[in-house]
Amino acid sequence: PPLIFCICLDVLLLINSRATSFLFTEYKYAGGFMTVFAVLIFVFLGSIEGFSTKSQPCHYSVGKTCKPALANAAFSTIAFVLGAVTSLVSGFLGMKIATYANARTTLEARKGVGKAFIVAFRSGAVMGFLLAASGLFVLYVAINLFGLYYGDDWEGLFEAITGYGLGGSSMALFGRVGGGIYTKAADVGADLVGKVERNIPEDDPRNPAVIADNVGDNVGDIAGMGSDLFGSYAESSCAALVVASISSFGINREFTPMMYPLLISSVGIIACLITTLFATDFFEVKEVDQIEPALKKQLIISTAVMTVGIALVSWLGLPYTFTIFNFGAQKTVHSWQLFLCVAVGLWAGLVIGFITEYYTSNAYSPVQDVADSCRTGAATNVIFGLALGYKSVIIPIFAIAFSIFLSFSLAAMYGVAVAALGMLSTIATGLAIDAYGPISDNAGGIAEMAGMSHRIRERTDALDAAGNTTAAIGKGFAIGSAALVSLALFGAFVSRAGITTVDVLTPNVFIGLLVGAMLPYWFSAMTMKSVGSAALKMVEEVRRQFNTIPGLMEGTAKPDYATCVKISTDASIKEMIPPGALVMLTPLIVGTFFGVETLSGVLAGALVSGVQIAISASNTGGAWDNAKKYIEAGASEHAKSLGPKGSDCHKAAVIGDTIGDPLKDTSGPSLNILIKLMAVESLVFAPFFATYGGILF
Amino acid sequence: PPLIFCICLDVLLLINSRATSFLFTEYKYAGGFMTVFAVLIFVFLGSIEGFSTKSQPCHYSVGKTCKPALANAAFSTIAFVLGAVTSLVSGFLGMKIATYANARTTLEARKGVGKAFIVAFRSGAVMGFLLAASGLFVLYVAINLFGLYYGDDWEGLFEAITGYGLGGSSMALFGRVGGGIYTKAADVGADLVGKVERNIPEDDPRNPAVIADNVGDNVGDIAGMGSDLFGSYAESSCAALVVASISSFGINREFTPMMYPLLISSVGIIACLITTLFATDFFEVKEVDQIEPALKKQLIISTAVMTVGIALVSWLGLPYTFTIFNFGAQKTVHSWQLFLCVAVGLWAGLVIGFITEYYTSNAYSPVQDVADSCRTGAATNVIFGLALGYKSVIIPIFAIAFSIFLSFSLAAMYGVAVAALGMLSTIATGLAIDAYGPISDNAGGIAEMAGMSHRIRERTDALDAAGNTTAAIGKGFAIGSAALVSLALFGAFVSRAGITTVDVLTPNVFIGLLVGAMLPYWFSAMTMKSVGSAALKMVEEVRRQFNTIPGLMEGTAKPDYATCVKISTDASIKEMIPPGALVMLTPLIVGTFFGVETLSGVLAGALVSGVQIAISASNTGGAWDNAKKYIEAGASEHAKSLGPKGSDCHKAAVIGDTIGDPLKDTSGPSLNILIKLMAVESLVFAPFFATYGGILF
Repeated sequence: PPLIFCICLDVLLLINSRATSFLFTEYKYAGGFMTVFAVLIFVFLGSIEGFSTKSQPCHYSVGKTCKPALANAAFSTIAFVLGAVTSLVSGFLGMKIATYANARTTLEARKGVGKAFIVAFRSGAVMGFLLAASGLFVLYVAINLFGLYYGDDWEGLFEAITGYGLGGSSMALFGRVGGGIYTKAADVGADLVGKVERNIPEDDPRNPAVIADNVGDNVGDIAGMGSDLFGSYAESSCAALVVASISSFGINREFTPMMYPLLISSVGIIACLITTLFATDFFEVKEVDQIEPALKKQLIISTAVMTVGIALVSWLGLPYTFTIFNFGAQKTVHSWQLFLCVAVGLWAGLVIGFITEYYTSNAYSPVQDVADSCRTGAATNVIFGLALGYKSVIIPIFAIAFSIFLSFSLAAMYGVAVAALGMLSTIATGLAIDAYGPISDNAGGIAEMAGMSHRIRERTDALDAAGNTTAAIGKGFAIGSAALVSLALFGAFVSRAGITTVDVLTPNVFIGLLVGAMLPYWFSAMTMKSVGSAALKMVEEVRRQFNTIPGLMEGTAKPDYATCVKISTDASIKEMIPPGALVMLTPLIVGTFFGVETLSGVLAGALVSGVQIAISASNTGGAWDNAKKYIEAGASEHAKSLGPKGSDCHKAAVIGDTIGDPLKDTSGPSLNILIKLMAVESLVFAPFFATYGGILF
Repeated sequence: PPLIFCICLDVLLLINSRATSFLFTEYKYAGGFMTVFAVLIFVFLGSIEGFSTKSQPCHYSVGKTCKPALANAAFSTIAFVLGAVTSLVSGFLGMKIATYANARTTLEARKGVGKAFIVAFRSGAVMGFLLAASGLFVLYVAINLFGLYYGDDWEGLFEAITGYGLGGSSMALFGRVGGGIYTKAADVGADLVGKVERNIPEDDPRNPAVIADNVGDNVGDIAGMGSDLFGSYAESSCAALVVASISSFGINREFTPMMYPLLISSVGIIACLITTLFATDFFEVKEVDQIEPALKKQLIISTAVMTVGIALVSWLGLPYTFTIFNFGAQKTVHSWQLFLCVAVGLWAGLVIGFITEYYTSNAYSPVQDVADSCRTGAATNVIFGLALGYKSVIIPIFAIAFSIFLSFSLAAMYGVAVAALGMLSTIATGLAIDAYGPISDNAGGIAEMAGMSHRIRERTDALDAAGNTTAAIGKGFAIGSAALVSLALFGAFVSRAGITTVDVLTPNVFIGLLVGAMLPYWFSAMTMKSVGSAALKMVEEVRRQFNTIPGLMEGTAKPDYATCVKISTDASIKEMIPPGALVMLTPLIVGTFFGVETLSGVLAGALVSGVQIAISASNTGGAWDNAKKYIEAGASEHAKSLGPKGSDCHKAAVIGDTIGDPLKDTSGPSLNILIKLMAVESLVFAPFFATYGGILF
């Protein structure tokens, strides 16, 4: 019918323009924040030597002189702005690519599932490579330009470079938290009225919140995820560089091994490039059931190729023996040990990916058990889902613990930092398969809105089902790498602050640990409640429109999409301030008033507690989502006995899915940012805290 | 009608006999476990000096000789058995008192709400005093009897006494986990079929699971809570005694100050005794709305009276100056500083109690917001409830952190141990108002089953509503004191194992911390899933009975209660083994294979992570329960707009309540045991780990 088609064209333009305008609003606030924080960095760091312009003796390179703190302050500020802008631009371009890719995927789906898969996958890959390459490029250029001023003073140079990580990560905060609230307020609101009350399909153009929902997928899942992983990548590079600069590479001014962290990432891009050919050229996806294996193969191949890459880089780029700074002492390390550090991170990432898949894919028993528990209603579904999330934490934590133990023992915090880089070295592939998810999801949405044939919707649904699992894998990667990155940043902070032990048996470290472990709960309380409140408003608005706009249910009148978009926008802008303030202010307050030991405790506590909640929240949410899909698809005898759509079991599953939305897409992934950002901020301000910190104790 | 009355008599006898028989079954398994573990303690500790019977030079009292490790092994084993038996007997007697009190409260309710209140409250108080007094008495007698052998060797004496804490706490594991699974499997199962599907009232005698539910309240909430708090009490006394024995009290053999921890508890009993008079004699409850204030006043009065008590004991029982062992050094402490340590623990308990009340009572906005979110269904209810639980963690953690900071700074781990004792010194009052809850709950159940008049049921409901909040306060106390106790035990463990720093900047401590923080999730995954699975079985059985027994719905045929009781019993016995094994084996495996540093990390990690989940789980559950009650009661305009019973809002609230059941009564409170038990077990086995531990590292 022509009206539906009109709506559809409107819709395509609307999604794109609304997503762009939301990001611009978000960036306006981010810009304001950036300016204030840049000033703060400059003033705090500049004040260390009373804004003196005289050079000072270095801390670690005995007998040499280093640039004044004022210069470090200025360059840290520039690096901060660079990191923030790179993150914003990457997120924005990624979102643009995604919104165009959505429509192209839908169109290709008319030709067959294989063609559609290639478009969706390649679009994801473009975004992955864009992020990985731009992050690396800007960092490399910045190091070389800053080097023109710093010359021989590598301590100051790489201290200033840490600002890059902080800039990248603070934009990720806006992306993850703001985008997360946006997307889930719209999603929950749209589902509660559309699917539950009005019984209309998902992505139906009659639903007033449908545009907000689709915009949200792009700004939350694509731009948010992109800036999160970009932040991790920038931060782990910075952590590695800071530790290296006060190790033998830095002290002896060996530029090639100094650039080892960047070399790993460069080789990673090449490895991922080779890997993508396996999905699109060497092998063709023809059937629906080949999609998920093809995506999973990407992970395995990139990891295998990258292992060879790391071996080469470690062999060619590193001297056989060198020393690494280890909390006050220097530790001798061999190049093959560093290879092991990077490799263990890389393979731990793969393990986490597969465990995440096991717990969130409906091909395996955990999700099927959750689906089965819907027989007795929503309550048992929720109980089983929460239990699944808690259980899914066990093996990833052991994998992370093993990588930390190995890399920490072999090469102290430098080892942990390169392990994180190892896990992130296949970031391009990770992002490709991760962005693939929302692209396919939205392609399905567009097919539905355009009233395209049932067969096309079936194809996009098949693409989307695989995308759900890969999105969960992407989240697993993001949190696993965040844990390693935070520890590396924590180590760099401790080194830079001149602490040699963080003893749990002192009152300030212990209470730091306890309060730090509480912060993820405080943060989640705010983000969950924000989604809940915004969803309530959205529900009321959607209900209002259905009740007051005549002809809306019949498809003869257009809903007022703009009001729903405004609700999501306003909620996300307003609601991201308190959690953002919590994350940004905690290190400053604790460091300034309670000193670096207490701050160390807070960072360690937030890290060990946050990683657990983040993993369990995203897996619980992923499992509920796929349990619902399992019942809807009805692909087995068991699944059929629970369905069909609209049965009591299915209704219970939808409730679980709705609860899981904020868990898996807002509060869970935002916790990555919490633990990383607090650590990198502490690192940047470490010289200040070391000089003036601990007013109260 | 005579049939209902018959059923009712049956029911009363059944609850009592089933509860007794369940506890006997539970104790049979506990007995088996106890025997095995007693042998383990003896063998492990005896092996330290190769089962030699020769005396050895002391560790801390320079130049003196101490009894052989074999003697310590033997006496630790005896103390372990004593602790376990005391815990069992107290729990059993408490349960007996409660089952009789239930019926008496129902009968008194005919005379008025005031009379019923006094009976319910006094019964709770009897249980509170019984526990507090028997714990203290057995401990004092054991110290004196053991002293006959040990004579001058106080190091060995108080090392052996720690077995008492381990014994008490391991029985609490059975009580909390086993009892928790029992009660919630029955409760969830009964509600899902009875209330949701069949639309019959709670506690209706036609519901086949009703007996199991009522039995569960007695074995889970009463016996489980009792042994939990008894365990805390025994453990914090032991932790304080161990540290004191290697401080100046112990080294100079000053018996009165050595007994300071026991003196605090004794004065606590007297203070609570005075306090109860305010509820029953000095002041009379006449109206329904006086109940909650009367119970709250108990907390405030007991805290105020106890503050004076502590001041007296500290003034009379302690020398003005003494030294306390502080991880390798001795620290000088004044008696008034120790007074502050005890007092800060006591008042922190009160703060935690009131914050818990604020977040779980439907008189305040947090629970009302949760109730309001039911407008849009179960999903938003769950999202708001989870957010509330997370948020409720903040202030209690700051209160705990403040007490730790103050007491740790003033008197090292001895300070923390006496702060824990301070919080537990009003245990008798705490248990009284806590046990009051399930007693009133069951009194209402009996009124319903006996078909008593609507007015009586209203009175018992009013008693019960106040009981819900006080039960949440009791849980707040339990977890707050568990945190302090665990830290004190951790400190005693570290002292005894001869560790002087636990440095987060070493790989084994850090991974210990990370894995330790994961354990509460693993543990909760098991307990939640156990309740879920058992509830599923219960639902099937209850449905089967409703479908196959003719006349059941009409009240002309009796349901088969025994099968439901058997399902709960079997589930709880079978399902408590894996979580129990996790808790009991972790310290042994980590200590033996990975050494005391890693174990320190695990203990600290489990403590800082577990306390958060425990608080948030019990408050989330409590809030859902009271949000449902808020809608049911319809006492305000707002509440009326959400109700009545059976409305969509109410149904959404019932789903939340059902999800909250295992959170607040099984997995949440069991975490107390996890963190305490791992710590006390490590303490008991510390000499073994210090000698043989760390095979792998």
